[in-house]
Amino acid sequence: MGALLVGEGKLSDYPILESLTTPQHIRQFTLNQLESLAGEVRQFLIDSVSGTGGHFASNMGTVELTVALFHTFDFLVDRIVWDVGHQAYSHKVLTGRWPLFSTLREYNGISGFLKREESQYDHFGAGHSSTSISAALGMAKARDLQKQDYACVAVIGDGSMTAGMAFEALNQAGYLRAKQFMVILNDNDMSINPNVGSLQGYLNQIISGQYYLKWHDRIEKAIEHIPPDALRRVLTRALKGGKEAVKRIAIPGLLFEDLGFRYIGPVNGHNIKSLTHFLAEAKEKMMDGPVLLHVQTKKGYGYEPSEKDPLTWHGIGAFNAVSGEINQAPVDTTKPDPPSYTKIFGDTLTELANKDEKIVAISAAMLEGTGLSIFQKAYPDRCFDVGIAEQHAVTFAAGLAVQGLRPVCAIYSTFLQRGFDQVFHDVCLQNLPVTFAMDRAGIVGADGSTHHGLYDIAYLRCLPNIVIMAPKDGNEFRRMLFTAIYCDCPAAIRYPRGAAPGAPIQDDFVPMHIGKGELLREGADVTFVALGTMVHRALEAADRLEADGISCAVVNARFAKPIDKELIVTWAKRTGRVVTLEEGCLPGGFGSAIAEYFADAGIKALLLRCGVSDHPVQHGSTDKLLQDEGLSAEEIARKTQAFVADCVI
Amino acid sequence: MGALLVGEGKLSDYPILESLTTPQHIRQFTLNQLESLAGEVRQFLIDSVSGTGGHFASNMGTVELTVALFHTFDFLVDRIVWDVGHQAYSHKVLTGRWPLFSTLREYNGISGFLKREESQYDHFGAGHSSTSISAALGMAKARDLQKQDYACVAVIGDGSMTAGMAFEALNQAGYLRAKQFMVILNDNDMSINPNVGSLQGYLNQIISGQYYLKWHDRIEKAIEHIPPDALRRVLTRALKGGKEAVKRIAIPGLLFEDLGFRYIGPVNGHNIKSLTHFLAEAKEKMMDGPVLLHVQTKKGYGYEPSEKDPLTWHGIGAFNAVSGEINQAPVDTTKPDPPSYTKIFGDTLTELANKDEKIVAISAAMLEGTGLSIFQKAYPDRCFDVGIAEQHAVTFAAGLAVQGLRPVCAIYSTFLQRGFDQVFHDVCLQNLPVTFAMDRAGIVGADGSTHHGLYDIAYLRCLPNIVIMAPKDGNEFRRMLFTAIYCDCPAAIRYPRGAAPGAPIQDDFVPMHIGKGELLREGADVTFVALGTMVHRALEAADRLEADGISCAVVNARFAKPIDKELIVTWAKRTGRVVTLEEGCLPGGFGSAIAEYFADAGIKALLLRCGVSDHPVQHGSTDKLLQDEGLSAEEIARKTQAFVADCVI
Repeated sequence: MGALLVGEGKLSDYPILESLTTPQHIRQFTLNQLESLAGEVRQFLIDSVSGTGGHFASNMGTVELTVALFHTFDFLVDRIVWDVGHQAYSHKVLTGRWPLFSTLREYNGISGFLKREESQYDHFGAGHSSTSISAALGMAKARDLQKQDYACVAVIGDGSMTAGMAFEALNQAGYLRAKQFMVILNDNDMSINPNVGSLQGYLNQIISGQYYLKWHDRIEKAIEHIPPDALRRVLTRALKGGKEAVKRIAIPGLLFEDLGFRYIGPVNGHNIKSLTHFLAEAKEKMMDGPVLLHVQTKKGYGYEPSEKDPLTWHGIGAFNAVSGEINQAPVDTTKPDPPSYTKIFGDTLTELANKDEKIVAISAAMLEGTGLSIFQKAYPDRCFDVGIAEQHAVTFAAGLAVQGLRPVCAIYSTFLQRGFDQVFHDVCLQNLPVTFAMDRAGIVGADGSTHHGLYDIAYLRCLPNIVIMAPKDGNEFRRMLFTAIYCDCPAAIRYPRGAAPGAPIQDDFVPMHIGKGELLREGADVTFVALGTMVHRALEAADRLEADGISCAVVNARFAKPIDKELIVTWAKRTGRVVTLEEGCLPGGFGSAIAEYFADAGIKALLLRCGVSDHPVQHGSTDKLLQDEGLSAEEIARKTQAFVADCVI
Repeated sequence: MGALLVGEGKLSDYPILESLTTPQHIRQFTLNQLESLAGEVRQFLIDSVSGTGGHFASNMGTVELTVALFHTFDFLVDRIVWDVGHQAYSHKVLTGRWPLFSTLREYNGISGFLKREESQYDHFGAGHSSTSISAALGMAKARDLQKQDYACVAVIGDGSMTAGMAFEALNQAGYLRAKQFMVILNDNDMSINPNVGSLQGYLNQIISGQYYLKWHDRIEKAIEHIPPDALRRVLTRALKGGKEAVKRIAIPGLLFEDLGFRYIGPVNGHNIKSLTHFLAEAKEKMMDGPVLLHVQTKKGYGYEPSEKDPLTWHGIGAFNAVSGEINQAPVDTTKPDPPSYTKIFGDTLTELANKDEKIVAISAAMLEGTGLSIFQKAYPDRCFDVGIAEQHAVTFAAGLAVQGLRPVCAIYSTFLQRGFDQVFHDVCLQNLPVTFAMDRAGIVGADGSTHHGLYDIAYLRCLPNIVIMAPKDGNEFRRMLFTAIYCDCPAAIRYPRGAAPGAPIQDDFVPMHIGKGELLREGADVTFVALGTMVHRALEAADRLEADGISCAVVNARFAKPIDKELIVTWAKRTGRVVTLEEGCLPGGFGSAIAEYFADAGIKALLLRCGVSDHPVQHGSTDKLLQDEGLSAEEIARKTQAFVADCVI
């Protein structure tokens, strides 16, 4: 199935896509043609993503919606902002990028998200959630000020709606009575995990019809109590009416109407006839003011395995398109699989929680991704998934802490940026014992520039009272988690996506001395001061360099704040040369802390800082990206050799 | 009026406060006593703040509410979180701190906000807005997990409700059906400026009764169309009822009910009888689930001048309590008053906007504070106040930028922390020409630790594509604003609260070379590399040191990113010693950038970094705080002298 390049004489698997030279043709399609196109797009995505892996379930859910949108609007002129962008594969397919899908999320290939530089149809890039309404509203006001004429559409999931940022934008859009502006709420009852929050309960009531029923009951009760004269007055006119007006009262989207939007929906998001009908209605209504179109979709729709288990199929590796079997990486059965940091986190936190009732956990719609689902199963009452709401997550944790608990906030490094002010204002300034478990720190590979966790050291290191750590392996991670929870101050642990190398997991917990690193190897010519993931690369580089006659000491820094001044300066003096190694941005990062200290203390050692220099890092395999950034063992050895040669002491 | 210390034989002005040894006594007060207490608290605040200055109008508005809260709850056990905290003076007065009010916001005096270290009644500190619901919800869940029994109350203004963070917290609280948990919406139709957003329109409809009327109409229309059999069926029962049930349908707080809260209100927030009645009702109802109590207050209430002009009286200097005349600082009429950076910003932006229609401005509820009110008067259509919603403000600006406009986002340095991820994800990654005008950078004085703008250099310098500048005076600020708007990339300008020193304002705009500083003074022994406010202090320190025989070069760095490597290294080599000067945090800051560069380039100059070291900075006069941090000209000279003496080249 799914030959991407169609040779001569071969029948194409995707005849409509083949003939679609511009998405503008879709505007003229008949309903039949639209349905055929949708079928073809879905089949293409199954064929293609089964080979490459990628975000899957969310993209299965938006095929019909995307086709209907391209039928209704002309996105050479009209603007569309897909929230997050990981549900926009169909958008990519329809805008001429389907022949490139074999390179999806690969080095120099197309991105899994939308990117302005990738296509004229990608009007706004994303990767983090809940930005679409703000961006589309900005576009709409820019259009009005420049007296232009086009529609601005934001497509946002119900999961993304839990983020306050989306509310901030609704609040302004309703207030401005923005015209030719529409928010499409793509409601599939999920973020990555099942969605949470009272707004979701409200949406579910609408969809199930219970909201209407609730209202209907209340209206009937009200009618019972209407004064007889009023009732008599309306009785004469009542004969001609149907039930429609009662429904109108029980407008299911009143919450949105109260925020200044015209609500339309709920609409079956897999029925193209309904979709085009209601999109046309919305397009007309949006001339008067902002419209919210509530579309109900099913994550994973149209492919049985993903429809049944959209959580597993949210982001997926390659799979067998026919059987739905997910390919696993080949396993070396001679040694046990090293567990991921994520798994160790979930297991260790649960283990610690067994012994201490005060330990509680907070996730922002990432129970699976952070490994907290393990903890949640053991302690459902002590595990809080707040939805995509990192700001609230952090301050909620601070509230738990002031009343004596030991909260652990598990948020990816890049997403904790959303709670930066709360980390400062609510946790650090008040010096509260909140632990931040920052998964996906460093380079994350396929997700690319929006998702790399490169900035955490820089943005946290400036804040008062906080301790920042990074483990070299799984066992050290367990000790760090233990240390962080009980150090009576704010603490953050950064660790990467993927397997934790190193020693087998120990059973007992030995607390660490705050701000103390460890010497792993003595040496005479140069000292590697390495943080987290870079420790093993430093050891490997040291081996390589030893062969070339360069003798390297290796320090496992453990702490980015406070740094182990004593240990580092001892070896800096002995070797005269120091190489700092971190999987993070160079400006303000860990190496920067060492440079600051050397300057402040007048340490005259020569310093080479290795990390990610000051530019966005694209997507691809983590190994390849690390090599590009000069952070592979080989590159470190090469750079160190040049450093030693250049810097004669 | 208002003797704070009452001598023997003198009749006290505040007899009830005098006798109130613990706020728990208020729980037994009669209505009369409560009203007398409120009157006394208000008079005390007028007497006291007229002498010290401080937040005024918001505190006038919450006197009765605070008294009623202390009557209803026991805050030795129950928890209260005041959002922002600048409306909590009455809370401070009632909890034994009124004799300390003469030290309000002064060095070593009591804070203008709540602080956990100041009183056992300050359960959660604040200063930034919209954190209270999250914090109180965290407390409530900590209580439940520990099987304790107390109420958790958050008091939040309608202005703070525009921040998405508040919505995130409501969304979770409603979902958790949190018990003994109440949000009091203190609705005065204001943030600092008049409040904006569709939520505010909704609240106003409730208060004015229009919401009910709108609903009443809709219900009447609906009744007209009810099928006759249904109508007949209810007719028999209709006689006994009144209008109450209709009202119930038109529940004004349905939006909050849809989010899972029991809505009570609106309540007159200056009528203690109503307040205590509805607080008692709410206290009972909150046993079943979360309650939102909608209290209507008037900012500035009970003091005519502030009631008439709550915007001016939001934060105020000393004033005449009887006449309401605001004391002005004595003016030296022999020379013109130097304008503030804030004023220059508003004027300059308006001037630039006169010539370029593409310039637009965005504020987050800070039109006055940022100087944008000037621009707004000239260009109301091009000025967007989004409310307290920094996240949305930044991405909204990005949306304006992608469609070809030149947006300028004016947000205080400390509040831009709220939009950190958006600055990264929506502006910097997409390399969009958005200008961030960061007022209140550096030490801000009386507002203290939550408000100092110390971290902007560190948290922005790690991000790709952004240019960071800081002007030494008003004229340079104008050039920087011009340069930032037209540099076709993200740009941030940091500038302090207060008057802009230096040359008279020039009329023409000369763009700056990005990343180029200027040499202001040659010298032989040491080079000051100073940023922004520190430039004039460096010049003054250089004068002092010259007298002691130390010859100082002075470089005005202008750019914190990119730094002027060429100029700095030239003078570093000539003098062998470099002193960096910044009004910002040392970790990751401007001096850190220089230390990084010296390390990377192998520059062997000795380096002394002067800035705010790694700890929270309290409140007081800016001059005193600067001196404490070693950033006065005198302290710089002293430290430099020691540096030169220690570091023999």
